[in-house]
Amino acid sequence: MGLRQDGRSNDAIRPVDFQLGFNAWAEGSCLISVGNTRVLVTATVEDKVPPFVRGSGQGWVSAEYGMLPRATHERTMREAARGRQQGRTIEIQRLIGRSLRAILNLKALGEKSILLDCDVIQADGGTRTAAITAGFMALTQALTKIHKTSAFTTKPLKDWMAAISVGLHGDEVYLDLNYHEDSQIGVDMNVVMTSKHQLIEIQGTAEHGLFSRTQLDLLLDFVEPAIDELIALEKSVLPEGALLIG
Amino acid sequence: MGLRQDGRSNDAIRPVDFQLGFNAWAEGSCLISVGNTRVLVTATVEDKVPPFVRGSGQGWVSAEYGMLPRATHERTMREAARGRQQGRTIEIQRLIGRSLRAILNLKALGEKSILLDCDVIQADGGTRTAAITAGFMALTQALTKIHKTSAFTTKPLKDWMAAISVGLHGDEVYLDLNYHEDSQIGVDMNVVMTSKHQLIEIQGTAEHGLFSRTQLDLLLDFVEPAIDELIALEKSVLPEGALLIG
Amino acid sequence: MGLRQDGRSNDAIRPVDFQLGFNAWAEGSCLISVGNTRVLVTATVEDKVPPFVRGSGQGWVSAEYGMLPRATHERTMREAARGRQQGRTIEIQRLIGRSLRAILNLKALGEKSILLDCDVIQADGGTRTAAITAGFMALTQALTKIHKTSAFTTKPLKDWMAAISVGLHGDEVYLDLNYHEDSQIGVDMNVVMTSKHQLIEIQGTAEHGLFSRTQLDLLLDFVEPAIDELIALEKSVLPEGALLIG
Amino acid sequence: MGLRQDGRSNDAIRPVDFQLGFNAWAEGSCLISVGNTRVLVTATVEDKVPPFVRGSGQGWVSAEYGMLPRATHERTMREAARGRQQGRTIEIQRLIGRSLRAILNLKALGEKSILLDCDVIQADGGTRTAAITAGFMALTQALTKIHKTSAFTTKPLKDWMAAISVGLHGDEVYLDLNYHEDSQIGVDMNVVMTSKHQLIEIQGTAEHGLFSRTQLDLLLDFVEPAIDELIALEKSVLPEGALLIG
Amino acid sequence: MGLRQDGRSNDAIRPVDFQLGFNAWAEGSCLISVGNTRVLVTATVEDKVPPFVRGSGQGWVSAEYGMLPRATHERTMREAARGRQQGRTIEIQRLIGRSLRAILNLKALGEKSILLDCDVIQADGGTRTAAITAGFMALTQALTKIHKTSAFTTKPLKDWMAAISVGLHGDEVYLDLNYHEDSQIGVDMNVVMTSKHQLIEIQGTAEHGLFSRTQLDLLLDFVEPAIDELIALEKSVLPEGALLIG
Amino acid sequence: MGLRQDGRSNDAIRPVDFQLGFNAWAEGSCLISVGNTRVLVTATVEDKVPPFVRGSGQGWVSAEYGMLPRATHERTMREAARGRQQGRTIEIQRLIGRSLRAILNLKALGEKSILLDCDVIQADGGTRTAAITAGFMALTQALTKIHKTSAFTTKPLKDWMAAISVGLHGDEVYLDLNYHEDSQIGVDMNVVMTSKHQLIEIQGTAEHGLFSRTQLDLLLDFVEPAIDELIALEKSVLPEGALLIG
Repeated sequence: MGLRQDGRSNDAIRPVDFQLGFNAWAEGSCLISVGNTRVLVTATVEDKVPPFVRGSGQGWVSAEYGMLPRATHERTMREAARGRQQGRTIEIQRLIGRSLRAILNLKALGEKSILLDCDVIQADGGTRTAAITAGFMALTQALTKIHKTSAFTTKPLKDWMAAISVGLHGDEVYLDLNYHEDSQIGVDMNVVMTSKHQLIEIQGTAEHGLFSRTQLDLLLDFVEPAIDELIALEKSVLPEGALLIG
Repeated sequence: MGLRQDGRSNDAIRPVDFQLGFNAWAEGSCLISVGNTRVLVTATVEDKVPPFVRGSGQGWVSAEYGMLPRATHERTMREAARGRQQGRTIEIQRLIGRSLRAILNLKALGEKSILLDCDVIQADGGTRTAAITAGFMALTQALTKIHKTSAFTTKPLKDWMAAISVGLHGDEVYLDLNYHEDSQIGVDMNVVMTSKHQLIEIQGTAEHGLFSRTQLDLLLDFVEPAIDELIALEKSVLPEGALLIG
Repeated sequence: MGLRQDGRSNDAIRPVDFQLGFNAWAEGSCLISVGNTRVLVTATVEDKVPPFVRGSGQGWVSAEYGMLPRATHERTMREAARGRQQGRTIEIQRLIGRSLRAILNLKALGEKSILLDCDVIQADGGTRTAAITAGFMALTQALTKIHKTSAFTTKPLKDWMAAISVGLHGDEVYLDLNYHEDSQIGVDMNVVMTSKHQLIEIQGTAEHGLFSRTQLDLLLDFVEPAIDELIALEKSVLPEGALLIG
Repeated sequence: MGLRQDGRSNDAIRPVDFQLGFNAWAEGSCLISVGNTRVLVTATVEDKVPPFVRGSGQGWVSAEYGMLPRATHERTMREAARGRQQGRTIEIQRLIGRSLRAILNLKALGEKSILLDCDVIQADGGTRTAAITAGFMALTQALTKIHKTSAFTTKPLKDWMAAISVGLHGDEVYLDLNYHEDSQIGVDMNVVMTSKHQLIEIQGTAEHGLFSRTQLDLLLDFVEPAIDELIALEKSVLPEGALLIG
Repeated sequence: MGLRQDGRSNDAIRPVDFQLGFNAWAEGSCLISVGNTRVLVTATVEDKVPPFVRGSGQGWVSAEYGMLPRATHERTMREAARGRQQGRTIEIQRLIGRSLRAILNLKALGEKSILLDCDVIQADGGTRTAAITAGFMALTQALTKIHKTSAFTTKPLKDWMAAISVGLHGDEVYLDLNYHEDSQIGVDMNVVMTSKHQLIEIQGTAEHGLFSRTQLDLLLDFVEPAIDELIALEKSVLPEGALLIG
Repeated sequence: MGLRQDGRSNDAIRPVDFQLGFNAWAEGSCLISVGNTRVLVTATVEDKVPPFVRGSGQGWVSAEYGMLPRATHERTMREAARGRQQGRTIEIQRLIGRSLRAILNLKALGEKSILLDCDVIQADGGTRTAAITAGFMALTQALTKIHKTSAFTTKPLKDWMAAISVGLHGDEVYLDLNYHEDSQIGVDMNVVMTSKHQLIEIQGTAEHGLFSRTQLDLLLDFVEPAIDELIALEKSVLPEGALLIG
């Protein structure tokens, strides 16, 4: 029996759904479902920036990531009870923050900061790429809200963007890995990309098996159409985002 | 203008909704909405008990409580980032655990433990009573699941139960306080009660104003019909719970 | 053999003793003995208040609670060594602080804060109610001291107050539970009450057994004379407290 | 005006008092007063030893040291609230443990451990030496108790012992420094010594001023009679300790 | 003036030096210098594995990373004093561990674990890639030592490997970035690669600027000769490593 | 076979080497080797002082001490991973700070602080005395650097100084204990002393055995020539230090 057991073709992503404005209090919010993976992202806007950018005229975006204890098949211990965040958590929230700062024109934002809280309600692989994609939606919704009360003079977003995972199992490429697939695979890669197929972040890891530059190319060939598909969905749900991109 | 601004009468509770089985992996789960308050409770069953009950032939129930950072109007710092749980969190999760242990026949459960994770998705007052009520639902669903594979010989639940808040503002009583009301009120009380109007827990606090025993009685008069209403809803959503009660 | 093994009648409290001014440096202090339970409370006055009341013209009272490691039969680990306070500690110190803020006219105090350190030297049940009662004494002594150098224009205390525990074992009520009794009992309740029998805080818990509203009334009938007895003792030890009550 | 303001001669120690058995639950306990300094030490006996001595046939003694927050003129933050013990605390508890292990025949004790909890109720200089002296009393009381149920075949204590501080201010020596003196002095030294004037621990520190070997000798000349005086008091309060020394 | 101020051509790496066996006690150790960057890596071999691989017949490699406080121009706070490791530290040590597990045949190692401690003595950019390269040397030395006492039946290493950074500044590519360059650059990438130019890990990040797939290719063209150069040096210093590769 | 197995006579110290300026970024630095013990000390100068000396016109010196995990034969857990510094670490860094403040004229330094980071690269006994000696070198180098840009009007150092350990095994005295010797010995003592043989700090501990005042004298007789030898070496490596002493 093959790696992929849910009937998808190797180059198919799982069903994706966005619930924009899921949270009533936040400036921006989006609950994303990618198959059984569900992540809620809220965007909080603050009129201050961290010390290291203060006075630069620039804004800032950062992210925090968490999992509800029973987001996983086996319950995982609550990090607040444990008293510290785990390495995986910290690595992921740094990736999300970096990716969304890269798509933003920080000068255009001005000395504001936007904090993205990414909480995994249910996990089935691909939570970090889901969080980045939903983070872009929540961020764009928050920017739209800012724009209504004090219009941006420069467009704050560089382009539409989305993120997806892809893996290599033997010589076969699989797009959008679920938990079962992710735990079997030799090489996995997360890619954050714009609508013009510019790279924002690429993280390829070979825990079980090495990969050639030719295979790297092949993996990226699978990624591009998935990014197109995700961005098309983003545009259908939040068309006003286009006004902020330039 | 009065304390209650949403058009409810003093003795009315907000609209309540249960989404049973909201989480695909947990043995029991319930997303409760009480007005704008939304709490997700999952029940995790384990075949072991904490050291202090080991060997007693009894089971155990405990609870953990958390808030997503943007569950509140103003974002609150993530407890995992802070490195410790706050006093309020700990006080609440102890209350939830105690209340649900009281409704259970721990001997009938046998040496199993059930951990209730109560996570506030959106907060607008009454999160602890909402968590207790939804906790009862998730617990009952998990017990029903256990019952299917190994039937209980003694009924594990003593009765149906629910929880609600009530307050005193001057001489007026208000049922089911939302955040705005709770922050204005002089005396507030949380009551956990069975369908037979037996008390499980009563916590009355007078931060701003004292209250007489006559007023205590009046507060409880408001509570009883609300408990009836909540339990009727529980029965409509999870009628098979009745099989476990005796 | 009955629950009560020390020869007391069900409605009798244990011998109580106050050593006012036990600590030479603190603005107020009281070592309370209730049978074998001994708690030292010191009051520290500061000319500043926490951020959330700053600028309101009001004062604040908070409490911290600790146990010496060998206050108990079995040594318990030092919380400072453990690196965090336990849930029970936090729950208790929040209760003490709330109760003493309720008896105080915070406006009359002005922007000062009083911190009550409650340290259990020896424990035999009822440490939280002993701490509240002794806390009232230490607080009153500190207020008397403030009054000498800058007289209050409004009386800062609303009334005398004290706290006591009471429990239900089967159908019998027992007042002022010691450790042995507390560990056997089905329903236990802590009550904080004024000399006029107004309630400040009522916390009733049914870990093993439920209780009716009739029983709740009966429990409170036992509490009232005990509060009278404690307050009579307070008045004999610190008569000048009466000057601050109005 | 001189350094010493309480009328004592330079070579006089403050009034010392021992309250043996102050704690009702502990195997050994002693509340020591040295002037205004008051330290409660309890000894807890356990039938197990730390991993690094396990299997060696030897026992172990360790100490923990704490201060109640208002033991000092200015309140100090509770270490449990701070989440970690301070450097000074750790340095002191290591000194106390080392000193009491040195007076003990660890082989004679067998694989038991004794934990000394030293809690400062009120501080006015010399808390660490007071803790060592009271620690010896609590330890001896605990050993006496062990001896009654299973008699030692080898004497577990090498000698009587006590500890005292001494300081150098300019060219003058001052014995048993109180807080005021300690904060003024250039060189201070803590000495732990047996009845035969053998040294167990000597810690001399020159924060403000250096000291010669001749001055070191002079400081020790002041210490010896103070040790004699303290040990005489120990013998009067706990004469049965002599049975354990050999 | 250009980005590169030290006279190197864009495709030149800084002078590299290995001091193998720098630590007298460790099973393997290597002090690497890359320009002013100096990292000491020690390898500790243990005859046990973490719980999640126990019983699998496989070994494990993990890494810890730290910086001496004054490794940097401005002193950074000691993480042990701070009480937790920072996000950057955790991200780096996870990268190092993953990369070295990927080059290893974990089955061939058997149920042993090797812990690589990577401590930065002096930092000037590229500490993570220096740690991976030196980590390979320390690991290989430790494996050689194991091989002497109990010869491997299967070769434990898949290939020689090394790591290097590369960046994009406008349209120009720069190899092996020092601290000054790294802080100016728009896109930076860390690559871990074998002697056969197989990829182990690729992490490309666009904090300031996006990059195309063509540019990704160009960056990798710069990396390959640098990897060759580093591996040639590895072979000259530790030729016996070749015996373990297959 | 005797305690000393490396051929040294009882009164000989191990070979000592100073590498001054080992760190390229710090204001002062010294890598000391004493036999197999290697400690790197860096001095960081800051134009501010801790709160408790602020406004006094005085400077401050403090120290932090750490060990690389594999500085020891058996790897020790990284304190940053453990989340807290151990008791031994804190005790040692307090000793180093005190000793170096004592040799300094804090008024002459003015409101500057110097932080000494003492990191043990390899340990074989005597790390705390090595750190003090190397700390004096790094401190003096940093003072020399300050002196070049703003000359001291009062000499900031009182004298040359060094530190050494000495022990008593039975009746024999051994100077400069290595790890093997230190773990066998009954009484050990660390002494910090000036070139004029004034004492700065003396810490004598009898974990296994007691010692008389006559033996204390004998131990100090061994220490003096070792201090002379160390200071002679200091003068040869950093002769310009003499300009700052008076």
